Amino acid sequence: MSWLDLPAGTGFGLTNLPYGVFSTSGTARRTGVAVGDSVLDLAAATGDPVHATGSLNGFMAQGPGAWAALRQRLLEWLTDPAHRDAVEPHLVPRSEVTMHLPVEVADYVDFYSSQHHAENLGRMFRPDSPPLTPNWKHLPIGYHGRSGTVAVSGTPVVRPWGQRKPVDGDPVLGASQRLDIEAEVGFLVGVGSPLGTPVPLADFEQHVFGVCLVNDWSARDLQSWEYVPLGPFLGKSFLTSVAPWVVPLAALEHARVPPPVRDPQPLPYLRDDDHPWGLDIELQVRLNGELLSRPPFREMYWTPAQQLAHMTVNGASLRTGDLFASGTVSGRGRDERGSFIELSWGGTEPIGLQDGTTRTFLEDGDVVTLTASAPGPDGTVIAFGEVTGRIEPAR
Amino acid sequence: MSWLDLPAGTGFGLTNLPYGVFSTSGTARRTGVAVGDSVLDLAAATGDPVHATGSLNGFMAQGPGAWAALRQRLLEWLTDPAHRDAVEPHLVPRSEVTMHLPVEVADYVDFYSSQHHAENLGRMFRPDSPPLTPNWKHLPIGYHGRSGTVAVSGTPVVRPWGQRKPVDGDPVLGASQRLDIEAEVGFLVGVGSPLGTPVPLADFEQHVFGVCLVNDWSARDLQSWEYVPLGPFLGKSFLTSVAPWVVPLAALEHARVPPPVRDPQPLPYLRDDDHPWGLDIELQVRLNGELLSRPPFREMYWTPAQQLAHMTVNGASLRTGDLFASGTVSGRGRDERGSFIELSWGGTEPIGLQDGTTRTFLEDGDVVTLTASAPGPDGTVIAFGEVTGRIEPAR
Repeated sequence: MSWLDLPAGTGFGLTNLPYGVFSTSGTARRTGVAVGDSVLDLAAATGDPVHATGSLNGFMAQGPGAWAALRQRLLEWLTDPAHRDAVEPHLVPRSEVTMHLPVEVADYVDFYSSQHHAENLGRMFRPDSPPLTPNWKHLPIGYHGRSGTVAVSGTPVVRPWGQRKPVDGDPVLGASQRLDIEAEVGFLVGVGSPLGTPVPLADFEQHVFGVCLVNDWSARDLQSWEYVPLGPFLGKSFLTSVAPWVVPLAALEHARVPPPVRDPQPLPYLRDDDHPWGLDIELQVRLNGELLSRPPFREMYWTPAQQLAHMTVNGASLRTGDLFASGTVSGRGRDERGSFIELSWGGTEPIGLQDGTTRTFLEDGDVVTLTASAPGPDGTVIAFGEVTGRIEPAR
Repeated sequence: MSWLDLPAGTGFGLTNLPYGVFSTSGTARRTGVAVGDSVLDLAAATGDPVHATGSLNGFMAQGPGAWAALRQRLLEWLTDPAHRDAVEPHLVPRSEVTMHLPVEVADYVDFYSSQHHAENLGRMFRPDSPPLTPNWKHLPIGYHGRSGTVAVSGTPVVRPWGQRKPVDGDPVLGASQRLDIEAEVGFLVGVGSPLGTPVPLADFEQHVFGVCLVNDWSARDLQSWEYVPLGPFLGKSFLTSVAPWVVPLAALEHARVPPPVRDPQPLPYLRDDDHPWGLDIELQVRLNGELLSRPPFREMYWTPAQQLAHMTVNGASLRTGDLFASGTVSGRGRDERGSFIELSWGGTEPIGLQDGTTRTFLEDGDVVTLTASAPGPDGTVIAFGEVTGRIEPAR
């Protein structure tokens, strides 16, 4: 129990304690922890300059020992009334803060680890081939994205220009007509690794600090014209939005679930029987406030621990601030799909909305908001900070 | 004429003046300029702290006015004997310096802009299709690479592990058996751009600071198994080597040549009649000292100015330290190919070496060195710092 008056059923209770970077009017960016409807100003409360740098990178680099120690200290502060007088002055109402990009992103990698999503896109993009490429069940397919255009939730989504190819005729330059989302879960590396040394799957918790929602905005018309043979580029690089709150891995211990059965068995470096990192996170996708789908992260074929092991098996180094995202989270059902291209089946099945309009892809003025929750201990809920964005007209 | 005793025919004369980051035994990393067989210690000679940061980023961010002003000042210092007493103490023999990664790389993008290279790979990887994909002549195809594994010339090349797929049978994990190079030219962004605002082709010189050689080491067996549908990932991400010396764009004014004729005409944002940035740079690829090929950069179908315009047409922002590379430079002739997969035609035509051995792909202990030169004014030569690496056995 906290001496703090926490709202009933809050997803930001003592079992969560996510980190973010905030400011209030006229003050510098600093690290905070969300608790109930407040933000605890860690820079002020701890006096530790690592929390006054304006990004989580310095703290993330300190490693699991420091992460656990601070989490324990926060729990004591917020439960023992003896700390109340010292801590309470450093609580700021969340309604009064501006949230910023929580990390300086080093490399950004995007995976493709939902079987339902990959099969759906395979059926649409490569109708004459099996829905999954031959490699899909042998390795977590991924690619590097643009880290310089990772931005915090709320950043306007300017409709991108680019080349698209009409079915008949030459390519044209214009505003994307198939602007989409990808509802994803992102993992942030705290502790780096040296060049030339793979990180084994079992070392996942030694490197990964926390988890945040990601919306990997996608221009499907640009993507489908450009992506053969070297993969997505401008169809993705205009913006990737991340939630302002990073849920510590420790808060998700109770949400761990067995991953799906893999058939065929992957190679030994990807076997995770002893380190299953399936996570029972349910995402929610809302368009202009209306709930469109509930993608189930627990069904992801490849776990983040497998992704980390794969990403480094060639000796690639990790750096503090590396972000790797799951790929679109989609379940089997239509109301579990994490992108509009799936929800509208490539634009052929418009989505009916409560206001009587329909959507295939996003229109100017649309607001997409992703939220998510996971089970915490003792019936508590772990909420993820939302990631939202409003579509602005092309410039 | 310099008061400095420059070696005859040096590629590091007064028309070049490339920047790098160096240290000597027991001293901090700082910016230097290569001139003849010396390095001018800019931190000491100018007293400007921007040259004592250990990377070029701060100076690159200052923009074309500052770049031109310092270049002019350097010329005066090195030509007017009145400056000799003040400048000479800050010259360090190049044989005594250790060179470091010259920039903190923000995002790394790799293009695919040699028509000869793309056609060669298309013929090998997709023998049943036309060698160029339908998009190739409409846009400069590119993808993001891993900036965290960009390292300076001389960094050991540890043979990567990864998944490869035998023709018959399941994928296996093991050391790459088809380790290759890609001889490329890289361009470094000095001045960033805001999110949502494309950079027009004509603004190339406002953003790009300089040019360096790049070897984009590639594991072809990993790449061919993983790359469909999202492009290269682990086949490339283990290491990308860059030269320690960054040739200022101003040094290449005399090397500008008309790019190849484009057919069909690209879309207007890629038309470069008024801003041709073809560059007459000849690369040299050496294996264990033996010259294997001379890839001609002047034949690249897409110029770096077109690449920059394309990379930002969707509104993606630029940051100081962004590196974009040309893609493998290959000419029409066999002795102009910039990769072993082309030189050995997918491993089917072993390359005979002077020592009597042959190569298809790289063997442990092999040393690959890229060099390059371009014409400067008045018959001078602009040399590029070499990028070299020795293959170490897999760990």
